[in-house]
Amino acid sequence: MAKVYIGVDLGGTNIKIGCFNEDITLISKTSIPTDVEKGPADIIDRTGTAVESMLADNSLSMTDLAAAGIGSPGVIDIENGIVIQAANMGFRNTPLKQMLSDRLNCPAVLENDANVTAWGEYAAGAGKGVKNLVLIALGTGVGGGIIVDGELLHRFANKGAEIGHMIVEPNGRQCGCTQKGCIEAYSSASSTAARAAEAIQNGADSSLKQLLDNDGEITCKDVFIHAGKGDKLAMETVDKTAEYLAIMCVSLLHLTGPERILFFGGMIGAGDALLNPVKEHFKKQIWTIQDEPLELCFATLGEDAGIIGNAALAMHTYK
Amino acid sequence: MAKVYIGVDLGGTNIKIGCFNEDITLISKTSIPTDVEKGPADIIDRTGTAVESMLADNSLSMTDLAAAGIGSPGVIDIENGIVIQAANMGFRNTPLKQMLSDRLNCPAVLENDANVTAWGEYAAGAGKGVKNLVLIALGTGVGGGIIVDGELLHRFANKGAEIGHMIVEPNGRQCGCTQKGCIEAYSSASSTAARAAEAIQNGADSSLKQLLDNDGEITCKDVFIHAGKGDKLAMETVDKTAEYLAIMCVSLLHLTGPERILFFGGMIGAGDALLNPVKEHFKKQIWTIQDEPLELCFATLGEDAGIIGNAALAMHTYK
Repeated sequence: MAKVYIGVDLGGTNIKIGCFNEDITLISKTSIPTDVEKGPADIIDRTGTAVESMLADNSLSMTDLAAAGIGSPGVIDIENGIVIQAANMGFRNTPLKQMLSDRLNCPAVLENDANVTAWGEYAAGAGKGVKNLVLIALGTGVGGGIIVDGELLHRFANKGAEIGHMIVEPNGRQCGCTQKGCIEAYSSASSTAARAAEAIQNGADSSLKQLLDNDGEITCKDVFIHAGKGDKLAMETVDKTAEYLAIMCVSLLHLTGPERILFFGGMIGAGDALLNPVKEHFKKQIWTIQDEPLELCFATLGEDAGIIGNAALAMHTYK
Repeated sequence: MAKVYIGVDLGGTNIKIGCFNEDITLISKTSIPTDVEKGPADIIDRTGTAVESMLADNSLSMTDLAAAGIGSPGVIDIENGIVIQAANMGFRNTPLKQMLSDRLNCPAVLENDANVTAWGEYAAGAGKGVKNLVLIALGTGVGGGIIVDGELLHRFANKGAEIGHMIVEPNGRQCGCTQKGCIEAYSSASSTAARAAEAIQNGADSSLKQLLDNDGEITCKDVFIHAGKGDKLAMETVDKTAEYLAIMCVSLLHLTGPERILFFGGMIGAGDALLNPVKEHFKKQIWTIQDEPLELCFATLGEDAGIIGNAALAMHTYK
């Protein structure tokens, strides 16, 4: 009998839930409000109710469940299935894996959300066909996941890789994490916007100045738009974002040896205006003593990466 | 019946061979000239003869061999046991694993020498007791190996990690590998000496100047000696070597999550004059949002790390 897999993608606002066949094709998906203030037990109970309803709508029942995966932000003890801390979710030493398993009456896995995204792309997106990849998520921060020989790389004590806090500029910009010079302090969407704004505040000439004066802030999207129109400061800002990403890719290549590095998150909306300069800088920065056929490309699953990744991880673990 | 394991450490000048019990205690070791010009078949044949003689001296015979490990410099296809290229050894597409296995009539493994060193320390040296570590070898270059959850990390296509070519200074010093700003271009023994010499040639005042004028060169050891005597330039040079190593350790921690990072190679002869500033800089550079109990220390096996690591890898693979 065919079995189905559930992926649960927890966010601060919504919980996305997907139901998948064994070949990771989507049967159905839904979304419910997170309502963080109601606490984890309520979150898991309502997730269960949503799953029951979704299954019934598709002539399935709880007995058809093979396994479920749930992804959470925060610091996670993957082996024991516990969210140690996720401030914006209100989790603290929360045994999410067991809670979900109990509610759905099937085996469950818990993983951090950045790793889940990487796994989703690996299983069913732009990472298909390779066993070694890195996903770099470019949003407010820089996150991601590393897959080596078909398995997620976990740091000691089951913590996920924190690729956003690789140092790319010694004693460089202050990062929100307390370190200096992290890639997150240069190439996240918010750091890209902040670098442009700081340069203008320090007297640089730019077509972004009026926007900054009017709105009191500029976004990463603004920077890319003005770069596209030929504004010198905006072009330089985008170029630096790309150069640091390329340098990070060189170091990642030498360490964990990906065949493909995927960029994910809001910033990839910039398209080739982001990807082309990253590729150019990578070509300039990487050694020439041996050929390194690394592919740099965009992730393709978008918002569904979370539900797909969680379901695919459950399948990888229990099938 | 007790079985013994052989470790073969290939160098450009000598081949070191060790014979070990199942608990990785040394039964006997020996060394023969490499004689690179005689070619790989001869090298393996003479290695076999040396093993036979060593076994006989210890009332053992070839039938007591459980497995053997051999480590080589160069680019290696670990899965297929082939040295793709090792210029200074004269190897090119050399199936060393099969050759050794045929000669000794036992299973064999081939690994690159940096990984072997890391494995030796993991199995029987300063890495004992942890499952996640990085070894950083500081010599003419910077090499090393990464162990994650008790296994060596291999890059795609079975290439070893190239931790010496992580970029720590964007568009920084030219590295011999053709990249710019690699850790090897700053913190290797030769780069440490070169940075001091360059500063003097650019007019910096230093007690090293006379040495440089007299001998035409200075060594890393000279730099540490003069730093110890209070020479400002030498102290600054050592401090930069340590700071870049610390920055590298921060990035490594966030990526592969070692519990311990071991420094190995000639430069560790400097002792606390190297290790203390690395620890101080690490403490300054690492984030404070969560505790990272990473141990920074020295490797302890010295020259025997190669034979121990090769024998221990053979045991790990075949026992």
